[in-house]
Amino acid sequence: MELAALLTSAGINIGVCALLLSLYSVLRKQPGNASVYFGRRLAEERTRRLETFILERLVPSPSWLAKAWGYSEEEILALAGLDAVVFLRMIVFSMRIFSIAAVVCLFGVLPLNYFGQEMKHVDIRYESLEVFTIGNVAQESQWFWIHCLALYIISCSACALLYFEYKSIARLRLLHITQSPLNPSQFTILVRAIPKYKEESFDDTVKNFFTRYHASSYLSHQIIYRVGKVHKILNNAEKACKKIKMKGVVIDKRCQPLRYRCGLCAGQSTSFQLFNDKFELSSKKSDLCSDSRAKEKECGAAFVFFRTRYAAIVASKVLQSSNPMLWVTNLAPEPHDVYWSNLWIPYKQLWFRKIATLIASIVFVFLFLIPVTFVQGLSQLDQLRQILPFLEGVLKRKFVIEIATGYLPSVILQLFLYTVAPIMLLFSSFEGSISRSGRKKSACCKVLYFTIWNVFFVNVFSGSVISQLHVISSPKDIPAQLAKAVPRQATFFITYVLTSGWASLSSEVVQLFGLIWNFIRKHILRWKDNPASAPSFPYHTEVPKVLLFGLLGFTCSILAPLILPFLLVYFFLGYVVYRNQIVNVYCTKYETGGEMWPIVHNTTIFSLVLAQIIAIGVFGIKESPSSSTSIIPLVILTLLFNEYCRQRFHPIFKNFSAQDIIDMDREDEKSRRMEEILEQLQSAYCQFPPDIAEFLNDEYGEEDLVTTKVDIENSSKDEKDWLNHPTLGGLPVSRLKEAVTSLSLLSTVSQNKDSQT
Amino acid sequence: MELAALLTSAGINIGVCALLLSLYSVLRKQPGNASVYFGRRLAEERTRRLETFILERLVPSPSWLAKAWGYSEEEILALAGLDAVVFLRMIVFSMRIFSIAAVVCLFGVLPLNYFGQEMKHVDIRYESLEVFTIGNVAQESQWFWIHCLALYIISCSACALLYFEYKSIARLRLLHITQSPLNPSQFTILVRAIPKYKEESFDDTVKNFFTRYHASSYLSHQIIYRVGKVHKILNNAEKACKKIKMKGVVIDKRCQPLRYRCGLCAGQSTSFQLFNDKFELSSKKSDLCSDSRAKEKECGAAFVFFRTRYAAIVASKVLQSSNPMLWVTNLAPEPHDVYWSNLWIPYKQLWFRKIATLIASIVFVFLFLIPVTFVQGLSQLDQLRQILPFLEGVLKRKFVIEIATGYLPSVILQLFLYTVAPIMLLFSSFEGSISRSGRKKSACCKVLYFTIWNVFFVNVFSGSVISQLHVISSPKDIPAQLAKAVPRQATFFITYVLTSGWASLSSEVVQLFGLIWNFIRKHILRWKDNPASAPSFPYHTEVPKVLLFGLLGFTCSILAPLILPFLLVYFFLGYVVYRNQIVNVYCTKYETGGEMWPIVHNTTIFSLVLAQIIAIGVFGIKESPSSSTSIIPLVILTLLFNEYCRQRFHPIFKNFSAQDIIDMDREDEKSRRMEEILEQLQSAYCQFPPDIAEFLNDEYGEEDLVTTKVDIENSSKDEKDWLNHPTLGGLPVSRLKEAVTSLSLLSTVSQNKDSQT
Repeated sequence: MELAALLTSAGINIGVCALLLSLYSVLRKQPGNASVYFGRRLAEERTRRLETFILERLVPSPSWLAKAWGYSEEEILALAGLDAVVFLRMIVFSMRIFSIAAVVCLFGVLPLNYFGQEMKHVDIRYESLEVFTIGNVAQESQWFWIHCLALYIISCSACALLYFEYKSIARLRLLHITQSPLNPSQFTILVRAIPKYKEESFDDTVKNFFTRYHASSYLSHQIIYRVGKVHKILNNAEKACKKIKMKGVVIDKRCQPLRYRCGLCAGQSTSFQLFNDKFELSSKKSDLCSDSRAKEKECGAAFVFFRTRYAAIVASKVLQSSNPMLWVTNLAPEPHDVYWSNLWIPYKQLWFRKIATLIASIVFVFLFLIPVTFVQGLSQLDQLRQILPFLEGVLKRKFVIEIATGYLPSVILQLFLYTVAPIMLLFSSFEGSISRSGRKKSACCKVLYFTIWNVFFVNVFSGSVISQLHVISSPKDIPAQLAKAVPRQATFFITYVLTSGWASLSSEVVQLFGLIWNFIRKHILRWKDNPASAPSFPYHTEVPKVLLFGLLGFTCSILAPLILPFLLVYFFLGYVVYRNQIVNVYCTKYETGGEMWPIVHNTTIFSLVLAQIIAIGVFGIKESPSSSTSIIPLVILTLLFNEYCRQRFHPIFKNFSAQDIIDMDREDEKSRRMEEILEQLQSAYCQFPPDIAEFLNDEYGEEDLVTTKVDIENSSKDEKDWLNHPTLGGLPVSRLKEAVTSLSLLSTVSQNKDSQT
Repeated sequence: MELAALLTSAGINIGVCALLLSLYSVLRKQPGNASVYFGRRLAEERTRRLETFILERLVPSPSWLAKAWGYSEEEILALAGLDAVVFLRMIVFSMRIFSIAAVVCLFGVLPLNYFGQEMKHVDIRYESLEVFTIGNVAQESQWFWIHCLALYIISCSACALLYFEYKSIARLRLLHITQSPLNPSQFTILVRAIPKYKEESFDDTVKNFFTRYHASSYLSHQIIYRVGKVHKILNNAEKACKKIKMKGVVIDKRCQPLRYRCGLCAGQSTSFQLFNDKFELSSKKSDLCSDSRAKEKECGAAFVFFRTRYAAIVASKVLQSSNPMLWVTNLAPEPHDVYWSNLWIPYKQLWFRKIATLIASIVFVFLFLIPVTFVQGLSQLDQLRQILPFLEGVLKRKFVIEIATGYLPSVILQLFLYTVAPIMLLFSSFEGSISRSGRKKSACCKVLYFTIWNVFFVNVFSGSVISQLHVISSPKDIPAQLAKAVPRQATFFITYVLTSGWASLSSEVVQLFGLIWNFIRKHILRWKDNPASAPSFPYHTEVPKVLLFGLLGFTCSILAPLILPFLLVYFFLGYVVYRNQIVNVYCTKYETGGEMWPIVHNTTIFSLVLAQIIAIGVFGIKESPSSSTSIIPLVILTLLFNEYCRQRFHPIFKNFSAQDIIDMDREDEKSRRMEEILEQLQSAYCQFPPDIAEFLNDEYGEEDLVTTKVDIENSSKDEKDWLNHPTLGGLPVSRLKEAVTSLSLLSTVSQNKDSQT
């Protein structure tokens, strides 16, 4: 590839990006697209813009860029939470380190590469890109110390920046923990693997255990019901709901959240909302729980609430029983964050599920290319004709042939790549995460490994599965192999940044899928907007993407410095785009409190070490042993630095410290807020959606419900089953019962109305 | 090697063993050797046998074998603690599994190997040993399924036995925790990395922190002093002690425990003993600690005592500060088990020390053979002559040449091997273990890796460092390499069991080094017996030895079943010998509570999986792919079994469970023993040896010391320094002061005595 060709390609890509961004600036002004581009705002404000038409709506403007750039970190923190700030910090870190790298490499390394060999340089526009890589430096050159120095500068500044980022994010996390308003999860633990005793319900077992061993701090508990059962019940509820809808009462849009989510897809958790309890329900609990049939359907898991945060943390940290497979305790996730459908999984299955997921992910990562190559092979013209004979006529035209052979393979590859994130998320669900954020974090790691392997290494080791396996089986040759392949592939990586990187940002901001779906929903399905359906930020796809570009940057910086300007454009554009998206589009439904940062840190260290190892290999090939050996201390120092950070900061992201937590408890006790907190606590975790009851209360007033005699005689068998179901014990179910009673009642009411009109 | 030769060799070894055992049975009857063979009994009873001479003392008898066999497990548990029982269980497990393996392999696999190929068998006595290995089975034989079946039977019974052993040892450990008499370590945590505040001593910092955050359960604390300082002081004390000794007063033997142990050698901990405090010393603390100079010499570590066991465990488990490098807490080791000289190590150094030790150990394991080969090369005759020309004359005799070339290399190798355990122990000390048992456990792991690598793999991969590294660099070929090499080396392993295995047991029981040292001490140095100097069991050398023979057994069982009878003899003999040694020779000074078992379990699983992988390779070479593939599920099942055990049992060996601990606390509170316990607690950990004071009190009576005026004017500068040293604050030092005062006094008394005579 020549420099001119690269610049042309860059020009085209800049044009496409500019076009898409202008398109976005127009589309975002259309009120019809508000739910796509302002999901967060709609969800927060619950107001609609007026649909007045002014000409300005059709003129592209760059004002959104300035607006997105203008937000301060405090504002983002207040708006979107710590996770978003950590994500942006990751981009800021990349901007900083690659600015340094660009200065060092463009002015130090690039001229050295260009004039590295005695050769006649042609017009720089027609110069091959190879000339700008380290491949152009003569063997045994005396100037490799500049490459070494550049690598030292980049590594040291990366470590320094990483250290300060880690420190400041750890500080933010501590503030997030201590300064945040009431967080029920701090008072709650999730107990799993509750042992089953004869003649005793789980409810009694939990109560007895915690009153015996944690008497001073135990407040109450909430048994978790098996999702399979709830699923069925909710399905019935939905049927009842639909029945009413069909009868013409306008409750369709509000019923939607009732739909049961399968728990595997990345669906939002609107169906499980924090509910400020107004009813006195604890008293109703006992009669349901004493039912003998109820016992069978409970599962061995419960939320246990404590009087202080410290007590909850202690209970979650200490081994409870001398059989480690019983009474397993964890700190509970936040109420919005609970992944209910995984809580029922018997604890004994978990280790097995984890291993199975691990193996499945590894197999998936390695064997991903097999079906892709197969399908790509299929797209060969002859095979296509063989399989789909009716296309014979069409496939004779030259234009069609070009598309089929030229674009089909890459489209298929791209489509396959789109399936990776959902599949990894599915694996993470199967693994048994108890929280949505945990599931996303786990999926993020899996996608990260996948991306690094399948984009970086597979390209470097030229594709086939066989050669991948061959590399693994001889680890000694890896540095030399990498050293040979990376400079060769540098041109590809530069174009990858140009096309895939910039394009992904443009498509992120335009939200093509969202736009299409919005159109279908509005104009074909004729559903109404549901402001609560704004998506949450897809960390599991975006974090690996940004980290991959970081990896490309570190590994290519001293070998092919031309990549750096393109990377810098990517990161600066990404900074604005992601800020815009975080502020306008995505909702923050749950928080991990910055737990993503250790992943970012470790990946960056991995990239640095990989870059250093490749450099060792390259210097080895270039027969400059002194340069090779001078890098080895850098590798060791980088690894030591990583170990130090792991010791110094990582525990903060895993545990709460006693000091902070006790101070928080004391403050709340002093300010007499504790009682209020504890009252709210017991209704914070709600396994069943209270929407129906709430809706009915809002819509019809409580009097109607209370005074009208309940008439459920006319309802179907399913509905009756649902109403009389004994397993719906515990706090939320009694709510549900009321709600459903009201629903049936409503159906009667509406029938009456129908007959009246 | 022929079968007859093997049997001859076995005969010779049996003879040697029988001789040594008879020798032992005679030697043990000599009263002079009591301190070698009955160290434990002497230490416990503190009585001497009468030295009457009867003829019976010279007649060898096998009665000790029967006696050693006769002890029940309960007796051993009561006598020598759980660790000894776990060690014996390991041997029992080996006996059981290799009995099963012997039955299966000798009757199933051995005939198959022998008649595996169409060949004319010569007289069985002159048959090569190769004929009995799997190498003799024809390619593509249909009978490999018997080998597979044998491997399945061995693996499954090993897993079943392992499971039951793990379960029963876990039960024993729980009993050990709950039923043991007062254990101060359960109430105590070790706090390290105490932050340094200006204008506040560590003492105040610790007190403030724990009264603030653990007010309800905090009892008191004890600051740890820097060993370097104590070292100096104790050296001075020793000098003083020696001075007195020279003046002729007979206190030499009692002064010995005062000698400061360097903390790196495997020395015994007689200098740090549980001391039942009789003095009221806490009151004296304050005046010493308020001294400004004292602050500098304290180090950032302390023992903190709690009112209940549960509180101590909670404090040890929960992250204390939001900076994880401050206020680091661990459960304290038992008082006898504390490794004082490591407690002062700044916590910030620990991670670095751990990494350094790890690297050093790995380098040592790999490079061990280099000096050995070098020295062995030196022992070549020519080189020897060149280096030591004065030996020219001697080296001309044939007999000397034979010894020099034949025995010198193996003697040197053996000597080098003897250095491994001390060096690994030294590494473990450097690593920063806070307890002696932890240090030994860590050394045990290191010696284990060393042994398995240098005895098994190096022999298999035929020796040189280069070929070792070559193997690592191509992991794919390992199974095939092993499959080729192991059957070839089987003969060597059989003779290894015969010679090294049996001989190590005989030498263990005869205690040659102990015997010689005892002789030197008694007849040349003329020291008197010190019953407290009985050694503790050298788990770090014996556990790896037994596990290595297990590894040889598993890997060779289906390949060369002839090894099994010899192994069985080893284990049965070992069972008796180790029981005898545990009951008679070794003292139990500290306990890990069976923490050795997870190491045994993991190593056994490793051996099993290794045997299975080798089998896969062998079947591959023998072109029996169906047998190869049928082993793969076995590998997976074994690994799953291991993972299950890790989940089910391993936490018990790492943590105490809240349930047990709270029950223990309640029981003690009910029975009103708690107050008594807490009183004893505060004087349980004693950094300075109280021996002198105790001795003097015993010897001279308290009145002498109290009424005689202290005269230290005549003592040397060092002694005065020592007496007036302000850093000797805290509880034990005031004791020391008294003791030393008494010593000086004594020196005056003795001078007076001298002048009188």
